[in-house]
This record gives sequence, structure tokens and C-alpha cells, in this order.
Amino acid sequence: MRNDIFKNRIKKVRRILRPKRFDALILTVGANISYLSGFSGGDSWLILTAKDVYLITDSRYTLAAKKQCPPCRVYERKGSMIDAVADVLKKLSAGKMVAVEDKIELSLFKILRRKLHIRLKSVKGLVESVRQIKDEFEIKATRKAAAVAQKTLVKVLRKIRIGASEIEVAAMLEFELKKAGASPAFETIVAFGSNSAMPHYRPTAKKLKKVDTILIDFGAKLNGYCCDLTRCFAIGRINDFYRKVYRAVFGAQSRALRTVKAGVKAKKVDTAAKDIIKSSNLPVFGHGTGHGLGLEVHEQPVVSVKSKATLAQGNVITIEPAVYLPGRFGIRIEDDVLVTENGCKILSLLLKSDEVPLLKIR
Amino acid sequence: MRNDIFKNRIKKVRRILRPKRFDALILTVGANISYLSGFSGGDSWLILTAKDVYLITDSRYTLAAKKQCPPCRVYERKGSMIDAVADVLKKLSAGKMVAVEDKIELSLFKILRRKLHIRLKSVKGLVESVRQIKDEFEIKATRKAAAVAQKTLVKVLRKIRIGASEIEVAAMLEFELKKAGASPAFETIVAFGSNSAMPHYRPTAKKLKKVDTILIDFGAKLNGYCCDLTRCFAIGRINDFYRKVYRAVFGAQSRALRTVKAGVKAKKVDTAAKDIIKSSNLPVFGHGTGHGLGLEVHEQPVVSVKSKATLAQGNVITIEPAVYLPGRFGIRIEDDVLVTENGCKILSLLLKSDEVPLLKIR
Repeated sequence: MRNDIFKNRIKKVRRILRPKRFDALILTVGANISYLSGFSGGDSWLILTAKDVYLITDSRYTLAAKKQCPPCRVYERKGSMIDAVADVLKKLSAGKMVAVEDKIELSLFKILRRKLHIRLKSVKGLVESVRQIKDEFEIKATRKAAAVAQKTLVKVLRKIRIGASEIEVAAMLEFELKKAGASPAFETIVAFGSNSAMPHYRPTAKKLKKVDTILIDFGAKLNGYCCDLTRCFAIGRINDFYRKVYRAVFGAQSRALRTVKAGVKAKKVDTAAKDIIKSSNLPVFGHGTGHGLGLEVHEQPVVSVKSKATLAQGNVITIEPAVYLPGRFGIRIEDDVLVTENGCKILSLLLKSDEVPLLKIR
Repeated sequence: MRNDIFKNRIKKVRRILRPKRFDALILTVGANISYLSGFSGGDSWLILTAKDVYLITDSRYTLAAKKQCPPCRVYERKGSMIDAVADVLKKLSAGKMVAVEDKIELSLFKILRRKLHIRLKSVKGLVESVRQIKDEFEIKATRKAAAVAQKTLVKVLRKIRIGASEIEVAAMLEFELKKAGASPAFETIVAFGSNSAMPHYRPTAKKLKKVDTILIDFGAKLNGYCCDLTRCFAIGRINDFYRKVYRAVFGAQSRALRTVKAGVKAKKVDTAAKDIIKSSNLPVFGHGTGHGLGLEVHEQPVVSVKSKATLAQGNVITIEPAVYLPGRFGIRIEDDVLVTENGCKILSLLLKSDEVPLLKIR
């Protein structure tokens, strides 16, 4: 069953390579290698030819690779990666053409070009474009990652005390994620009070007060797949203006979610969210309303004003409108959804109410 | 004072650029940028010209950059990184030659070449070669990172209980590092019993037994600088053979430490450690005896059989001999040292005795 999944993905990539007259593709991007082989280790490359799939790795990973990657021939390299690639491709005759991912380091590309006797061309985003459309296995994996993240959040919210620092709360979240067998999908953001007004923020030693607000943006990576969630809370009591802004952001998310559907332009979703914020006379957030996610926390398609993407069945995207009020506070609400023929399916556990969650903390 | 440090580093790099007739250097590697500017944020590039240092960043980092990087002109980009580079370099006349680090992504190099009207050449390991010789500031930073790591280890050793999993112990270490204001320098290795026989290992759900052994390989990153330590412990009681192997590894480390000195070939240090293991009739470890460390956890010089490096005053290296006995156990002892004119200075808190540390754990 799992084997079929990888065969199907490989087939899709070969279908793109053939008309471009490539006889092989050298993959150097970890997430793409993992996508086509199931391999979770590091320092490895994949070579896709018309008939075979070679995973080039070293002795540290050989055993794991043979177990994890049934569709691959595992090549254990003793020398350099480039020598191994040359060895695998030596059967190709001189007229052949080989593609390599253009995210490769320039230095390695130069050595490759020197050592291979065949034509080498770089290609952009080839496997990434296939990865935009998630299969059943991936959707399930994202759902599981979101479930673990949510359980972790509930657990940690119970443990937070007045006087805890942002760094401590972030560390607690990452600790509980690890105990649950997951890992942080990215650096956890925990921001108290006015710190939440910065969209990209790193936790500090700032301490939680009796009357305060919290913004938490975090994700679990489980079996390779990422989720990405943001939640906001009030501590002690809810300020009327905070409540008003929270409702506006909640409303913007609801509107964006109702706009999501296969065939819809991604930027239309962005506009839908921003229109609601604008109509509440609040400042419109500068970032996009969302982004694809899967093996990486930022993937195609992008949901922003600049995006040229059209949403397709099988896209998994975040929806994360926000309001930032410098010096006061910020509110962002973020969930992960699957794009379907008729709308979307929520992969995380959507908030049920537009009422600000009030935490009782000692 | 800090400003002088950066000026001095920049001077050293310019001294290499000048005879090569480069009019500017484009830096894309985070650690190199941080080394020359003090900047700790992401997504930024540095351009070094004969007179100026430009840090190209975006609005997320502008404030931090201006604060952290007194020697730099901070350029806030609105468009793409490449457009910003082209704008900074537009004053250079057409005949000029610009270097770019060869760790740049091929795709970005191609766009750069297209957009710049000047000659572009890639260079290998230029700033890295300067970074091999640490200044006072860096040595102090590494020492501090090691002190935090050691305090964290002592704290966590007291909290471990029989039945704890490798994953839990690793998560505890990383949690305490974060609470101390540091972060893990790399993925923490915690291996119980026979799992410690694998030199590159990822913690699992395996539980600690009443009679067991532990190998912990971890590091703190503090103010940008990494330490890297490995310690081994026995739980319950010490097996005679384990004691024998421990002493051999300890002896190999002592011998290697005595060999370290400016002017000595790095591979001589490697041989010194391995000879002791060999003379104890134990299998010789496959990896090198050590590696440089600083802003990154693996830097120049490499201390291995293949290394062509000669140790120099100011190198900071690990010394980490080991014995791996598949199916039984592994022992590795690792410390961080500064190479001096007459020998070395230990930056971590060296073990005082060759007796296996026995942990009393409930």
C-alpha cells in the first residue's frame, strides 16, 4: 500500500520529465527526496531514471534507507556524493540529458558538470509542483500532526502560570511536542501583550501578567508532515477593544474559508479576508492570508495578493488573517485546510466561537 | 569594543580580496554574515566593498540590524534580494569584478549573473578560512556556551528516572537549555545501552533500565556560538568490560589532548587517539577525532586521517575519541579546546578521572 503511493508519485514526476527529454533527474532537496522515496534521513540524494530510482546515502543511513524506501535501489557511497552520482549515471550515453534541481549549491553543480560526461541542465520547482496536490496519505498525516499540536496546546495551557516567560512557554510547547513523538515544525512563537503586534517574533524573557494577552503560533511535524496553528487568548479579563478586533479576525478567517474552493484564484481568498478587516476599520495585515504546507511548512500555493495560483483539489493551505496594532497587541487566527471540489475540509480543530478564549491562570 | 572586533574581521577578509582583484564580495552564508556584522537574524545578505559593508535585510529585521551591526549600512529591501544587490552594486563600473560565495543556490546565482552588469565569480570558503582563527570574543562565547551546557546536564541528570525514554531525556536537556537562554547547537543524542553503539543516532522511545548505560552528545548555542560535548554514564552498577573500554577512551582523549599544539598536523592528533584504542585491542572508531566549531557546530579544521590541516593558534576544536561495540554499547568522550602556541586550553569542564561516572537514579 505505502509502496503504491511512492510509485504513483514517481510516475507523476516521470510524466513531466519525458516531454522535456530528460533521461534522469538528480534530486538534492531533502523534502523532494523524502516525497519520492519515504526516506527520512539526511545527507542523501535521489536519482530518478526512466526505469530506476537510486537513493545515494552513506553507511549511517543504509539500513534505515533499505527499510524505509522499498521503491529505491539504495547506493551506499564510500567517496563523495558527486563520485557516486557519476557512478550511477555512467551507463547513460554521452548524448543524454540530465536534470538537476536548481536549489543545488553552486559549488556542487560546478563539480557535477565537470565530472559528468552528459549534458546537465537545472530545473526549477519540478517536484514541488507535484507536491502541491496532496494524496490521501499526506492529508491523513497533516490531520494527525494537527491533532498532536492541539493536544499539546491544551496540555501546556493548563501548565502556564502568571510570571512565566515567553521563552518558557515556547520551551514547554516544544518539550510536550517531543514527548508526543513529534517535533516543532518551525521556531515556536509565543508573544505576550504588545509583543504580539510583531508578525515575526522571537520569544523573550518577558513575563506573563495577571491581566494580559497571549499569541501562540506553532506547529507539529509528525512523520514528516507539518501543521501550522495560531491561537490568541486573554488572561484575567477581556478588554472590549481586544474583543472587537478578535471578532474581526475571526470573521475574516470565516469569510476566507468560505471563499476557498478548487478553481478559485488564491488571491481572491486573500482579498476576501482583507476586505473584512478593512470594513471593520482596522489596519490590514501585510503578509498573505495563507500558504501551502506539507513536508515543508511553506510550500506552494501561496495565498497572497501577488499569487498567480489557482486553488486545486488536494492543495493543503493555511488560512491566517490577522490584525497588528503596534504598541498595543496583535491577533492572528490560523488553521490548516484541504481544498476540495466544493470548498474545503478543515484539517485542524477550528474554533467554534468568535468569543475570545479567556484563560484561568494562577 | 565590539565594534573593533568586527572591523578587525572585515579587515582580514578585505586583505584576502585585494590581491585577487575583487572589488566586492557578496555573502550569502548566515554564519559568515553574522561573523562580519554581528547580525543574528535570517534572510539577509552582506556585501563587502572596498569601503563599505551593506547588510541587505527586510522590514522584519531592520530595527534589530541597525542595533546589532554598527559597522554596516543597513539596506531595507522592498523587492527581491537580487534587485537589492543590483542596486547596491550599481555604482561599480562595468569592468569591476565581484565575488560571491559558492554556497549560493544555483538558481539565485543565475539570476544574479543576469541582472548584474559586472563580472561575477564564485569563491570557496573565503570567510570560513578566516573564521578558523578565533578571537577573544569568540573564545569567551564558546566557554560560556560550554558552561551553560554543563550546568544543564547536571540539572537534567538529577531529574532522570528509571523508565524515562531517550526522547524524554533529550527533550529535557533541550528544555533546560532554552530556559537558560541558549538553544540546542544540534539535534541532541541520548542513547541507552546498545543504542550507544551507533555513532549517529536519534533518540527513540527506549526506556532506561535499573542497570543500564547512557551516552549523551549535545551542545548549547549561546549568543551564536556552539559547544559540543559527549558524556557517558553507568546506571545501577558498572560492568568490568564497560569500565575497561571507558578507560581506553579516556586514555585516547588524554593522549590526543597532549598532542594538540599550534604547528602540529591535525591528522597526527587523530592518529594519537586511534593508536591508544588500537593498543587496547578495541575496534578503532570510523569518524575523525574532532572538528572545528564556532558559529557553526562543524567548521574548519577537521581532525581526521584525511585532514590536510595544520593546527594553528586560535583554532577551536573538539576532541572526541570513541569505541563502538555493535549490539553491546558505545563510549565517546568529547570536549572542546582552544589550540595555543604550547598546547591547548580546555574550554569545557574536562573530566577529572578515568573512573566511569555511576548515576544514582530512582
